[in-house]
Amino acid sequence: MLKLLRNNGINKLSSNLIRNYSSKQSIFQALDTFPKRHIGPNENEINEMLKNINTSKLSKKTPNNLEQLIEYTIPKDIRLNRDLNIEENKVIGENQLLKDLKKIAEKNKVYRSFIGMGYYGTITPHVIQRNILENPGWYTPYTPYQAEISQGRLESLLNFQTMVSEFTGLPMANASLLDEATAAAEAMQMCVNISKSKGPFAFLVDKYCHPQTIDTIKTRAEPKGIRIEVIDSKDFKFTEDVVGCIVQYPSSNGVVSDYQQLAERAHQSNALVVAATDLLSLAMLKPPGEWGADIALGNSQRFGVPLGFGGPHAAFFSTKDKYARLLPGRIIGVSKDKQGNPAYRMALQTREQHIRREKATSNICTSQALLANMSAMYAVYHGQQGIKDIANVVHRKAVVLAEGIKRMGYNVLDRPFFDTVLIITGDKTDMMIKELESRQINVRQYCSKSISISMDETVTSADISAILSGFSAHASKPLGLSSPEQLEKETSSLNVIPEQLTRQTPFLTHTIFNKYHSEHELLRYIHKLQKKDLGLTTAMIPLGSCTMKLNATTEMYPVSWPEFNSIHPFVPANQSLGYKEMFESISSMLCEVTGFDGCSLQPNAGSQGEYAGLMVIRSYLTSIGQSQRNVCLIPVSAHGTNPASAAMVGMKVVVVDCDANGNIDVTDLKAKAEKHKDTLAALMITYPSTHGVFEEGAKEICEIIHNNGGQVYMDGANMNAQVGLCRPGDIGADVCHLNLHKTFCIPHGGGGPGMGPICVKTHLAPFLPGHSVVKGVGGERAMSAVSAGPWGSSSILPITYVYLKLMGGQGLKKATQVAILSANYMASRLKDHYKILYTGSHGLVAHEFIIDLRMFKESAGIEAEDVAKRLQDMNFHGPTMSWPVPNTLMIEPTESESKYELDRLCDALILIREEIREIETGKADRKNNVLVNAPHTEKVIVSDNWNYPYSRSKAAFPTPATVASKFWPTVGRIDNVHGDKNLVCSCPPLSDYQ
Amino acid sequence: MLKLLRNNGINKLSSNLIRNYSSKQSIFQALDTFPKRHIGPNENEINEMLKNINTSKLSKKTPNNLEQLIEYTIPKDIRLNRDLNIEENKVIGENQLLKDLKKIAEKNKVYRSFIGMGYYGTITPHVIQRNILENPGWYTPYTPYQAEISQGRLESLLNFQTMVSEFTGLPMANASLLDEATAAAEAMQMCVNISKSKGPFAFLVDKYCHPQTIDTIKTRAEPKGIRIEVIDSKDFKFTEDVVGCIVQYPSSNGVVSDYQQLAERAHQSNALVVAATDLLSLAMLKPPGEWGADIALGNSQRFGVPLGFGGPHAAFFSTKDKYARLLPGRIIGVSKDKQGNPAYRMALQTREQHIRREKATSNICTSQALLANMSAMYAVYHGQQGIKDIANVVHRKAVVLAEGIKRMGYNVLDRPFFDTVLIITGDKTDMMIKELESRQINVRQYCSKSISISMDETVTSADISAILSGFSAHASKPLGLSSPEQLEKETSSLNVIPEQLTRQTPFLTHTIFNKYHSEHELLRYIHKLQKKDLGLTTAMIPLGSCTMKLNATTEMYPVSWPEFNSIHPFVPANQSLGYKEMFESISSMLCEVTGFDGCSLQPNAGSQGEYAGLMVIRSYLTSIGQSQRNVCLIPVSAHGTNPASAAMVGMKVVVVDCDANGNIDVTDLKAKAEKHKDTLAALMITYPSTHGVFEEGAKEICEIIHNNGGQVYMDGANMNAQVGLCRPGDIGADVCHLNLHKTFCIPHGGGGPGMGPICVKTHLAPFLPGHSVVKGVGGERAMSAVSAGPWGSSSILPITYVYLKLMGGQGLKKATQVAILSANYMASRLKDHYKILYTGSHGLVAHEFIIDLRMFKESAGIEAEDVAKRLQDMNFHGPTMSWPVPNTLMIEPTESESKYELDRLCDALILIREEIREIETGKADRKNNVLVNAPHTEKVIVSDNWNYPYSRSKAAFPTPATVASKFWPTVGRIDNVHGDKNLVCSCPPLSDYQ
Ligand SMILES: Cc1ncc(COP(=O)(O)O)c(C=O)c1O
Ligand SMILES: Cc1ncc(COP(=O)(O)O)c(C=O)c1O
Ligand SMILES: O=C([O-])O
Repeated sequence: MLKLLRNNGINKLSSNLIRNYSSKQSIFQALDTFPKRHIGPNENEINEMLKNINTSKLSKKTPNNLEQLIEYTIPKDIRLNRDLNIEENKVIGENQLLKDLKKIAEKNKVYRSFIGMGYYGTITPHVIQRNILENPGWYTPYTPYQAEISQGRLESLLNFQTMVSEFTGLPMANASLLDEATAAAEAMQMCVNISKSKGPFAFLVDKYCHPQTIDTIKTRAEPKGIRIEVIDSKDFKFTEDVVGCIVQYPSSNGVVSDYQQLAERAHQSNALVVAATDLLSLAMLKPPGEWGADIALGNSQRFGVPLGFGGPHAAFFSTKDKYARLLPGRIIGVSKDKQGNPAYRMALQTREQHIRREKATSNICTSQALLANMSAMYAVYHGQQGIKDIANVVHRKAVVLAEGIKRMGYNVLDRPFFDTVLIITGDKTDMMIKELESRQINVRQYCSKSISISMDETVTSADISAILSGFSAHASKPLGLSSPEQLEKETSSLNVIPEQLTRQTPFLTHTIFNKYHSEHELLRYIHKLQKKDLGLTTAMIPLGSCTMKLNATTEMYPVSWPEFNSIHPFVPANQSLGYKEMFESISSMLCEVTGFDGCSLQPNAGSQGEYAGLMVIRSYLTSIGQSQRNVCLIPVSAHGTNPASAAMVGMKVVVVDCDANGNIDVTDLKAKAEKHKDTLAALMITYPSTHGVFEEGAKEICEIIHNNGGQVYMDGANMNAQVGLCRPGDIGADVCHLNLHKTFCIPHGGGGPGMGPICVKTHLAPFLPGHSVVKGVGGERAMSAVSAGPWGSSSILPITYVYLKLMGGQGLKKATQVAILSANYMASRLKDHYKILYTGSHGLVAHEFIIDLRMFKESAGIEAEDVAKRLQDMNFHGPTMSWPVPNTLMIEPTESESKYELDRLCDALILIREEIREIETGKADRKNNVLVNAPHTEKVIVSDNWNYPYSRSKAAFPTPATVASKFWPTVGRIDNVHGDKNLVCSCPPLSDYQ
Repeated sequence: MLKLLRNNGINKLSSNLIRNYSSKQSIFQALDTFPKRHIGPNENEINEMLKNINTSKLSKKTPNNLEQLIEYTIPKDIRLNRDLNIEENKVIGENQLLKDLKKIAEKNKVYRSFIGMGYYGTITPHVIQRNILENPGWYTPYTPYQAEISQGRLESLLNFQTMVSEFTGLPMANASLLDEATAAAEAMQMCVNISKSKGPFAFLVDKYCHPQTIDTIKTRAEPKGIRIEVIDSKDFKFTEDVVGCIVQYPSSNGVVSDYQQLAERAHQSNALVVAATDLLSLAMLKPPGEWGADIALGNSQRFGVPLGFGGPHAAFFSTKDKYARLLPGRIIGVSKDKQGNPAYRMALQTREQHIRREKATSNICTSQALLANMSAMYAVYHGQQGIKDIANVVHRKAVVLAEGIKRMGYNVLDRPFFDTVLIITGDKTDMMIKELESRQINVRQYCSKSISISMDETVTSADISAILSGFSAHASKPLGLSSPEQLEKETSSLNVIPEQLTRQTPFLTHTIFNKYHSEHELLRYIHKLQKKDLGLTTAMIPLGSCTMKLNATTEMYPVSWPEFNSIHPFVPANQSLGYKEMFESISSMLCEVTGFDGCSLQPNAGSQGEYAGLMVIRSYLTSIGQSQRNVCLIPVSAHGTNPASAAMVGMKVVVVDCDANGNIDVTDLKAKAEKHKDTLAALMITYPSTHGVFEEGAKEICEIIHNNGGQVYMDGANMNAQVGLCRPGDIGADVCHLNLHKTFCIPHGGGGPGMGPICVKTHLAPFLPGHSVVKGVGGERAMSAVSAGPWGSSSILPITYVYLKLMGGQGLKKATQVAILSANYMASRLKDHYKILYTGSHGLVAHEFIIDLRMFKESAGIEAEDVAKRLQDMNFHGPTMSWPVPNTLMIEPTESESKYELDRLCDALILIREEIREIETGKADRKNNVLVNAPHTEKVIVSDNWNYPYSRSKAAFPTPATVASKFWPTVGRIDNVHGDKNLVCSCPPLSDYQ
């Protein structure tokens, strides 16, 4: 027995497989190098995979190695014939790189910041930090499109919506937007959409809104011709064209005003009122919904999400029930599954760009799920009482501070405030700022004559003392012996918030916010939700166009460093030199990767990159006197964000056909370009195509556009097929965005964060977006900002930095080669079982491919959804479904998946083909089979009355991997129609406390 | 619908429940305070629980609040009538405390250490650090006694054994011991046990063993009368009394010797050979098993476990098959489950103290599972080739270093070496050490005339340059321009390890070590294993005597700080001032908690604390001329470690009876104490008793022992019922140990690490253990060391420090009150369903209680095991089974469990009582019912032929919690007899790669 078992499974490695330590490599070269960990298949497996491509005759030629494979895949005229110049000749180990990066990080100075403006110190409960932010179970999953294996984060996002709705007093909330400023711009657009007027439109902006918000609103308004008036809200005039107005509550200068009458005035003129607000303040203040706001929005950052030099944080957004269908962003709703059990899923998707394209309410895809979940958990952990306590303490600290400063003879603005104190410092302003800075204290220079200081839950008595002693250095009266504690006593009966602005209604009333207050309970709640979700910790997520590759731990570590995550975005430049160095390095690496000359790290997602890129084109065209150019050609196969973004910049979308091979119909393109040659602004093109093919005519296509006066925008979603092998700039594009959360390893976080920087040719660089608060960002002729933060979600950029540096030019190239190899290997294994929809001229695909399922509708009553759901029964997340071609699946394996995992997916798909055949041949019932009934939950399997014509084990344990370790979908197939008809989006989670 | 759902579940908090921010508390007091997070029930729940105790009439009196509950529970004469003096009047928030601790940590200097001696720099792969060391899924579970819900870590521990066995060339390995030094002492004892001789015994120790190992061997040998000879192994004489010998391979001074002939000589004299060895070196060197060693042991630290200033690390231990049954420590073996599927579990438990008591092979319980798992994963990640590369690089660096130093005219020992270079520095020794220290480099002063320097995988070219330039400062010849890279080239053909000592055989051959080399694969493997194990992330673990309380995240963070985890244990004292400060603070807090005067942080587990405490008593008795005292009274109810430890210090165990109430029979005790009054050494007593009761006569008992010349040893396993309410010192004990992994929040790690410091009265303090390498440890008349590290597992001590500081005197007291409340609440809910076996005079229990199941054997054929396994079907880890009373369950809820979780367990047990009644009344079959068939796995449930007389849903989803979120046991009831008969302990895991 002993002997037998010992031999069983032993992999006698033939001695030639185990090389001796290679004498070529110096012993001083790091051994903890990264490419071998990032790339799934090893050398032997790569060779096996190539062999399979050959023997299966997928390719018309015989690729014998990776180089040849690429020769046959990528058109010669665009191939890059050198390694990327990234860390060349240096082999950095994971540990050394982190040490180097730490040195850069330490160039940031972690001072105390009381700048406010939507960003505040906060205490992330450690149990949330470790078990969500630092937990791959939470940060690796995709957006919860496959709801049955996403009930955990869907529940948490519903908690987020419930929390937002209860705080703001508006019943309908979404599951986050990218940042407060873009949320405000979305609100403006929503006011336009609600108005149903044909225009002209105007939108009034209170001048006491945060400046970055005003800036972003202006950016968005300009191409749409919306007139923006930035004035004191007291002076708002609701002329006929006014569709809405926005106020900041409390104002950017800290003042809490009563907007009830404003709201009444607005509503009398059919204009809407938007409140940009702060969740914590709403624990004390009358909620916007109660004084008449129609829309509330803001940043949930101070609910436990680190400052991160501007992001990522989750913006929130809520409105009245009647506007639900015009709400931008993703909304989580409650529906029921096939067995009638309640189940969560994304609601009202018909509003979104992937359905409505240029008519969508917004172009948002990736949002901020991970951060929304952190904020929701913060509320779950603290509950109503806890948040009340925090709000009260923050407020009283501001009172203490104001009193202390006042006593020294300073002029403190005498208006109601929550957490922010405005001091009229007059001529002393500069001096005071310097004085405080010398004490490692950052405050906000509100204007040339005043300073504002914002309190938060991290502020200590020592902090207040330090601020006071800074002020006392230049005071007209001495502070005397008043310690903060003394001042606290002496101000305890002061009431600075008037009765009519005080909150009277409860919040966080639902049980979910009232039972997980001990650490064990919260820990178990987090883990209970995590267990329901399939992330990369469980299986590959082969989503075409999404590039779900490894999010390596080494890449993630720096995100938790205080030198990166504890810095306010608006600190003086000399406090963020580490960030500066990293930004410059990333920018130049991304330029090298794309073949471009300039880079903006501002856009917060792919959608925002598209918008920013088109805006840059627009600015450029205007600068050369071509502002009439407003036609945007978009292939029929394009992602829905493309037309949605084009619409946002006021362009007219003209659709270009594809040919039978899925490629752009060059004749049609040429015809349309020429037809519109006087008004042609741009072409939006995805490369390799959304069909997963390196089209041959890419260079020619770019030339046609240029010849007709247009610019070429390349959607970078498929960059994972290009990096190190060819470059958008070389192909002829003028601008592209990069989804750092796809190609460059930022985890998807269950639906965000992401980053969508853009790279541009020299002629476009001057127009790259600037920032109203932080100077020196963007080009010399910078357009206004597209995000709240000057560099978007800065604190996740180290992920991309670490990835690029650890891979180096050679590693990046090999990664792309293997990504292409893996797709072709899978195609070669599947080609006899499924029709591979599009291939390039050699029969090869790029880094992803489409299997056609359309024929099974007739032959077996089976559609793509059935196959995707059946894959859930086999421990898989389904591939991209019905996009870009209805009723197909698009598979993208990425280079990080091992051959084992690729084979597991092939085996599963082949088994499913057999299951379809069983229906086709009449062995299985057309209406009642493992596919249409998939996924099968525990509850279904265990039920004592098994009424299915197949066995339980066939249903739930169809593959060896499921027998070894089963991942259970926690609800059955979800009824989306029911959910959209009976919309419930900010309600109590139904799963009671168990 | 909308309305309905929104109301459903909303917990309308009556406004009086939500207090306004309490005006009593200053706004400058932290809000992120810990007691409310650590303690499960809130004030309302505490009141409800008290009410239940009253209405259920559990108590003969009516406790109306926590204070009264304690009055009725703890005898008046021992109650502490003040708060503990720990952080009194200060309320520290979690974040502030971490900041304060960070400042202390920064007093440690993180220099580069090349000291060797069993501790080396290592690179912990980040994927292992984050997903094991920093993952509560891995660090919170208990020792895998409940094998069906522990298959994950059991598999990993089997990997550890397999790895150890393959490296050492000895087939039978255990799943870790506490440290290399105690492993060596265990090996000595094993040689004695194998010899079967009656003595006298001698054991030969090579003087080139690590000094801390020699010291610990001596400590262990002395009370057993084993003669130790420490000489050069060349001079070993195998006289008749010699049972074995030990050599260090490679030696402590770096030399690699051939011990084959030594082994032959030993075996000719029936003596055994023990090799203390180093896993990494065995990648290059002939394994001990191949040159004749009978036992191999060592420290697996350098396989990815941080230095941690001495620990925790996993010691390994392997031997020949024929000695399996004498192997100390836990052994993982393969058996099969009820369905015949292979299943892992702990093997050969009949050897262990809980069965064999004073005749056990060793007293080890808690070992180092978490660290063993990290090391095993390190091997899984690197595989044979990876480890070979690391070993080779480490070795070649040593060659380069030796060559560089030699060239400067130094005298380098010219013998084969692996990683350690010995330089005869003569009179320059002190100066050189100082020179290097000034360059932030630590080396080992090997003796007054020599220095040794050990290389490891973290060593860079810059490190070697720095060392060389240190040497060049005092060199007779210049090094010239020889960079490390240059030296590498020039030494590349040097071969310092002779052919006959070179390893020829492969290692890590099993597939498990050859398929998880990409990060995705390792990540998924770690998560796949994690998913199989029930930890505190899933449910309470109500193990009586084990105190499975919250391991809070804030407590865990500092364990990952480099200032704590990257320090070699033998650095000069001025580099570890932060540790010193923390040790002093912990020691004085523990003295305050126990009412004692001195503390040793050296013992690495409870068992080691017992041993150390008894040794201290022994030293004291000897010092007062009472060395004849060698009788140890131990109550029949004692934990098996007590007699096992007594035996280790050469004491004769005399068992004391218990009365019908489970208390010590004072009459019997008195009689025996008086009978042995001339030889009475000690009483070992657990308080509250192992039956979970505060016995009334504790003070009297201590007096009886003292009156008869003995000392009182208190086993601190039950300290969770005492902290802040009464104190061992006040009761009359002279010494006690504290299981920091029970009462003081160190997580169990799935079977270790732990810490078992001892506290003592003044008269015993002088004898507290010292250390042979680090001076100034222990008392003035310190006994020799009991652990390899001077302060045991230093790097986990911050956990306890943070806990004590965050709770403060009041928090600690309340925690204990609630722990006692929770046990009594559960007892009150269960008393009408089960017989509560023992209670105190008021009908109350302490912090744990026993439910009697003995009657069900006859009435229903049901035993404790059936109930424990059935609890697995209900998402629970069973309570302590059949200890201290056979066929009972002992339940300890701890203060960290919420009322919800306590009720969930009560409901489950009440349901089980109903299920037993179904058998009793004939409704269910006696041989075939949900209890005897428990646990039910997915595979059983799904099986298409369901042959049980009850339904699937009854089997697997018996409770609401399982319906909401099921935790599946992954194997069925395990056949232990089969496993022990067919012993397979270092074999391939059977679950193939799926
Ligand atoms: C081709 C394409 N373009 C744009 C996007 C939008 O990117 P993001 O989700 O980052 O906004 C996607 C997302 O999948 C995409 O596939
Ligand atoms: C009463 C008692 N004594 C001693 C021990 C041994 O402690 P350790 O496992 O830390 O060695 C235990 C362990 O549960 C125990 O319950
Ligand atoms: O190891 C024990 O916990 O008994």
